[in-house]
Amino acid sequence: MKRYLSLISFNRAIEILNSSFRDPQRTETIPVTKSSGRVIARPVFAAYSVPGENLSAMDGYAVMSRSTVGAKDQSPVIIKDFVQVNTGNIVPPGYDAVVMVEDTWDSRDGILIRKPAMQWQHIRSAGEDVKEGQLVLPAGYRVRPFDIGALVTYGITHLEVLTVNIGLIPTGSEIIPLGHRPGPGQVVESNTVMAQVYLESAGAQCTRYPIVPDDPELIAKSLKKAVSENDLVLVSAGSSAGTRDHTADVISTLGELLFHGVAVKPGKPVILGRISNKPVLGLPGYPLAAQTVIREMAGRLIQDWKLTPPPVYSVPISLAHGLVSDIGFDEFIPVSIGQVDGRYWGFPHSRGSGVQMASVRANGFVHIAPSVEGLEAGQIVDATLTTDPASTNRTILISGRYDPAIESLAEIIRENGMVLHAAKSGNAGGMIALNRHSCHGALVSLPDFSFLPHCRGITGLIPRSGLIFIHLASISQGIVSREGVSLNELSRVRFINRQKGSTTRMIFDALLEVRGVAPETIDGYRYEVTSQEALLDAVTSGMADAGICSSGAAKASGLCFVPVINEQYELAVRTESCSDPMVRTLMEAVQSLQFRAFLERAGGYDTSRTGTINAISEDLAVTEIFDTGCQD
Amino acid sequence: MKRYLSLISFNRAIEILNSSFRDPQRTETIPVTKSSGRVIARPVFAAYSVPGENLSAMDGYAVMSRSTVGAKDQSPVIIKDFVQVNTGNIVPPGYDAVVMVEDTWDSRDGILIRKPAMQWQHIRSAGEDVKEGQLVLPAGYRVRPFDIGALVTYGITHLEVLTVNIGLIPTGSEIIPLGHRPGPGQVVESNTVMAQVYLESAGAQCTRYPIVPDDPELIAKSLKKAVSENDLVLVSAGSSAGTRDHTADVISTLGELLFHGVAVKPGKPVILGRISNKPVLGLPGYPLAAQTVIREMAGRLIQDWKLTPPPVYSVPISLAHGLVSDIGFDEFIPVSIGQVDGRYWGFPHSRGSGVQMASVRANGFVHIAPSVEGLEAGQIVDATLTTDPASTNRTILISGRYDPAIESLAEIIRENGMVLHAAKSGNAGGMIALNRHSCHGALVSLPDFSFLPHCRGITGLIPRSGLIFIHLASISQGIVSREGVSLNELSRVRFINRQKGSTTRMIFDALLEVRGVAPETIDGYRYEVTSQEALLDAVTSGMADAGICSSGAAKASGLCFVPVINEQYELAVRTESCSDPMVRTLMEAVQSLQFRAFLERAGGYDTSRTGTINAISEDLAVTEIFDTGCQD
Repeated sequence: MKRYLSLISFNRAIEILNSSFRDPQRTETIPVTKSSGRVIARPVFAAYSVPGENLSAMDGYAVMSRSTVGAKDQSPVIIKDFVQVNTGNIVPPGYDAVVMVEDTWDSRDGILIRKPAMQWQHIRSAGEDVKEGQLVLPAGYRVRPFDIGALVTYGITHLEVLTVNIGLIPTGSEIIPLGHRPGPGQVVESNTVMAQVYLESAGAQCTRYPIVPDDPELIAKSLKKAVSENDLVLVSAGSSAGTRDHTADVISTLGELLFHGVAVKPGKPVILGRISNKPVLGLPGYPLAAQTVIREMAGRLIQDWKLTPPPVYSVPISLAHGLVSDIGFDEFIPVSIGQVDGRYWGFPHSRGSGVQMASVRANGFVHIAPSVEGLEAGQIVDATLTTDPASTNRTILISGRYDPAIESLAEIIRENGMVLHAAKSGNAGGMIALNRHSCHGALVSLPDFSFLPHCRGITGLIPRSGLIFIHLASISQGIVSREGVSLNELSRVRFINRQKGSTTRMIFDALLEVRGVAPETIDGYRYEVTSQEALLDAVTSGMADAGICSSGAAKASGLCFVPVINEQYELAVRTESCSDPMVRTLMEAVQSLQFRAFLERAGGYDTSRTGTINAISEDLAVTEIFDTGCQD
Repeated sequence: MKRYLSLISFNRAIEILNSSFRDPQRTETIPVTKSSGRVIARPVFAAYSVPGENLSAMDGYAVMSRSTVGAKDQSPVIIKDFVQVNTGNIVPPGYDAVVMVEDTWDSRDGILIRKPAMQWQHIRSAGEDVKEGQLVLPAGYRVRPFDIGALVTYGITHLEVLTVNIGLIPTGSEIIPLGHRPGPGQVVESNTVMAQVYLESAGAQCTRYPIVPDDPELIAKSLKKAVSENDLVLVSAGSSAGTRDHTADVISTLGELLFHGVAVKPGKPVILGRISNKPVLGLPGYPLAAQTVIREMAGRLIQDWKLTPPPVYSVPISLAHGLVSDIGFDEFIPVSIGQVDGRYWGFPHSRGSGVQMASVRANGFVHIAPSVEGLEAGQIVDATLTTDPASTNRTILISGRYDPAIESLAEIIRENGMVLHAAKSGNAGGMIALNRHSCHGALVSLPDFSFLPHCRGITGLIPRSGLIFIHLASISQGIVSREGVSLNELSRVRFINRQKGSTTRMIFDALLEVRGVAPETIDGYRYEVTSQEALLDAVTSGMADAGICSSGAAKASGLCFVPVINEQYELAVRTESCSDPMVRTLMEAVQSLQFRAFLERAGGYDTSRTGTINAISEDLAVTEIFDTGCQD
């Protein structure tokens, strides 16, 4: 197995990238009406003065101010030399003031005025807005939509703007183009599509070449063509160290390999080469890794060449939970950012570089420096927003036990103009986040309130005051098996258990204790799986005979199900935060008819109490709250 | 003369606008690759699961985890049932773990392993990224460049996005289209161009109709057509109350006038009408007024219809100088925003609605509420940025006596990646701003340092410590005339003076005092003009015989010039701020060869001391500083 030749630091990689190539200084001339967001290549000067002549700013008469000196109410002056003008009319040469029609009286010999005219009064003088040849925009300026109005007014029809020609080569025998449904093991090519959209937003011109299979000769042929036609070439994938990864070898053959492997996550397998003095970047195959290289390397290189990607904005955020980071590596981690109690909090997403949904769900990212080994919950870091900064004030953060029903809540909330970000952090993670005031609500999965006192693992998590619970749904939990095993029959079958710490496991253990069943009498009690899917697989395949899961999941797998207890799915919020518009929107979404209809359509949820609100007291007594439970 | 029917408040106008029309709910279906920045009309779901099957995340062997139980260094296990897999290969059904090739040893009967495999280890399970039918994006979501990678991966080729069809009608007999040079009194049409660029950036589809002259019948014909083809129509100009302003009458004839005249500046003559239940907005003719209506009315209406213009960002700024505001009017005032000593300061621009350069030069605007009568210098207000927020950290603010040479400094500074904003606030305004720490440097025009002690008006402005002066250029001032009048001959001609408070006037007065000339002996001493241009006009036209101005201006007008004294143009900065990178960039730009070359090309500047640095002491003694004068 080949290994990366060496792993250099991210900073060193950027240095090599920016210092090894000359700015191609490529420009193109485009109509001014298409120039919004583009960077102009040379200073722009006004083609003529605006206005071109002295213009009247009022309806009235052009006069010579000298001839009005001394006019008073008691001794009006008659003006004989005047020209009638409307607003926007040219004030003829020799006249240096306009008198409003309201301030004049007709007289046989001319017009009569009762106060002197100040020189230049009511005149827009020639060149008042801009003078012929005056600098309008300096080189390097990024054109804004409303600048175009001025440019048009000043006679500028075309602009020479910066660009870069970028060739994009997708490679991979498993890759198919957009518009085809992937067969087994196939993937739709998205890295060069993403690169094109992002780099063109900075003013680059991208050419996507046809998909090349994993064949060094074909890759070499495409690369030679792309290098000859562009200022920069990106080759998607083939950059890892596997047997089908030819990009580095092809670059070495055609030119020079500057680096292969950078201490950055995601994005480690990135390649930089030089062919005919032009840069060639090898993108990793995983989309999030490719994204990092497109943004942080290709993007920075063209910024160094003075193009400008759309602006981004940074905010300091507190991390909602801790992060472990590899020392020596620069890491870019997607985060969901919102404001809770006036403070920005960010929930880091999972870091699997194959999980594109993490970046879709996130509204920003944090860049962790290579000197950092880890970050603690609550620590403040700078985050770069990937959305409208104002939208963080409309972002609702929830954390805890995830369920697909949350996606319906997200839709309902979106219709109210807000955005829901849900962190999948389990029962305990959700309660910790809520206590830390780092989220608006926590999702918890509890046993029936009546059984709650038996579940010490769960009750320990829940503060006995200051919280209210909005009921999302109840889910029937029970014994799943191929042949209809009940709770009392577990000792005669091979059981498969859920992992310690899961709600299902805590309820199961409490059930055994209440019924006086010793765990060691159950065969397979110690054999744990970490997901409901894995448990169902084990029972279906015959590895085990029975396990514990929800009725919906058991039925969807075509297995038998014997109900044992209800698990209830609750949204916990801090009572004092009920008047917060975010929290209120969240509660209203749970209580909406739309949400209930979604649960009923989806099936497997008992919605008879959906939307009811309860409080738990010190002694675990539960009170239903019939109003919204808020003191505001 | 017609008057506006009534003037309603800006808030009421927005209410009428947003409540009188139904969202047309127009959508269009576009390729996903063109969807960046667009708002999706319906929720988007994954077309299939990604990955579609369980995939190996490593090169190695797919095994059944159960068969690996008990493997230890001391007692390795031989696995007979396995399948060789490379990274990305499908893990066949029945296998639930992958063992890395590095962790196996060949054996005659199969592969030998020394530790058990965890279930699902090194497997990317089917649907790990997204499951078939899972919500990817909710309705109302604004697509970001990198979302497109995920959408493509999930099999989404097209998106239904929101749009609005907008018709734009330019009217006016003086209006000509872009690409033609305006003759006397003509103007290039820019309001509908600006509207198109801005509204299309929010996802609208605009149609610009041909220019219509000021003829009610032709306007009516064009308007009928545009209303039938669009969801919203904007008619540019003809909205004032002049004799050629027909828009309101035409709307009344074809439909209903909802308002004409709103208490907003700029933008007061705006019209809203309803024709065939569709909104028709009449834009004012002045570009900055049109801009306000496009952004704050048309823009808000389509936002109410769920389209989203590109995000903007607000910052609290301190006003660098006070503002008077009309009570009852909402005002939008362009400002130049920068950071001085870590605090945001904004310099309001001039408010002439014909001066488009004010908006080009500004990087933001403030919205002043109708209840506000005026704002004081230093008062904190929210400003909306019209540029990249990060660029405010690269903005250098200077204030004071303006000279065209500053545009060359702006270009040099732009090449260093910074942006220069210069407020034209005169000598006194510049010094006040510098003392208030609201700018990085002040531009002042002084007499020769040796003559400075005679100019009490000027010396009073200048603090005697804490400042250094970087010399920009010297300009020879003297007597301008048609026939070569000298300073001693002024008593025999008709003189024209500059206004009190101008540097030229202060120097002139000091000169008369030093020479013992009584002002009343000079005919025309009390006749003042407020600009060099006006003074030159008066001398050229024969209204006056002589005045005082710069040698360059006199020569450019073809008049005679007799030199009297040097005026020196200086950049003043606070000594303690010399290590600030902004101030340093500014000083280096003044000392650059490029700046000197510009001055020499422009002519009229004496550059022999350009870039020299001086300090003034308590007794007005001047010391030249030979290093950069900074203690850092």
